[in-house]
Amino acid sequence: MRILGIDPGLTRCGVGIVDLDSNRRTTFVAVHVIRTPPANDLPQRLLELETQLRELFVTYQPQAVAIERVFSQHNVRSAMGTAQASAIAMLIAARSGLDVAMYTPTEVKAAVTGYGRADKTQITAMVTRLLNLKEAPKPADAADALALALCHAWKGQGNARIAQHLQKIAVVVAS
Amino acid sequence: MRILGIDPGLTRCGVGIVDLDSNRRTTFVAVHVIRTPPANDLPQRLLELETQLRELFVTYQPQAVAIERVFSQHNVRSAMGTAQASAIAMLIAARSGLDVAMYTPTEVKAAVTGYGRADKTQITAMVTRLLNLKEAPKPADAADALALALCHAWKGQGNARIAQHLQKIAVVVAS
Repeated sequence: MRILGIDPGLTRCGVGIVDLDSNRRTTFVAVHVIRTPPANDLPQRLLELETQLRELFVTYQPQAVAIERVFSQHNVRSAMGTAQASAIAMLIAARSGLDVAMYTPTEVKAAVTGYGRADKTQITAMVTRLLNLKEAPKPADAADALALALCHAWKGQGNARIAQHLQKIAVVVAS
Repeated sequence: MRILGIDPGLTRCGVGIVDLDSNRRTTFVAVHVIRTPPANDLPQRLLELETQLRELFVTYQPQAVAIERVFSQHNVRSAMGTAQASAIAMLIAARSGLDVAMYTPTEVKAAVTGYGRADKTQITAMVTRLLNLKEAPKPADAADALALALCHAWKGQGNARIAQHLQKIAVVVAS
């Protein structure tokens, strides 16, 4: 199963693609960061995001989509932009007939590091290790998008072995 | 010039269409309220909204689009839904090559009633009167969408006569 994870944003939208095989092993496929110029007006930025995101759906043909659930605690203004970018992502997924799974940042962090309050450095380190990447994905949005795809790959898999494995690695990374 | 006004929302999205002629007179064309079932999941609702809104663009072929600017003071959760619905509206407008004008609720209220803090009853009354409608448009989202189209019709027109006329009617309505 191919999973496409999306960390929605207008300035930077992370898109991470991961394959999950029948042995429940995850393999890195690709990672992209879509950027739309802040100087452009909002409708134009949403259209650019839609065009580029749709191209990635066509290129990678995902079977499942995971999108970060938007919260607005921090900065209401940027949360609105994130909400609007996520609307575009959801629209494309729905149009492709794909189910969309939504995960909170805490769920994603817990899934890939075993710790719901992990920072960006820890997430990037774990994603790099779990997917056997030669280089750490950059910027953080790229790592977050891959973490979302991994989170979805493991959710509902009931694979205690992976969870245990994660827990062990998390201890190593944290120490 | 045909103007399509959109009061964005997931549960109810008002769409009002108004023609502005060369004498700067405004004529009612149509008003619709798009509803998406709250029981459906969010990606599906956004897709339904996009499908129905796109049909209205095809049917009425607007030359200008006015969308209510989303604020998040009141209820953050519903503001997120409104932001996502407005993203779909902006996307369709941008895809149609149309410029999008955004107006705050205060600007719209001031434009149609002469008073930025007018309530829904006043707006509905003014829209009904200004467009010579036999019946008041319902629900409030329908009247708001027409008010947005009227606001855009008059903005930047520099038509002091209309403004004065409005001011007079507003006094009558308010009294």
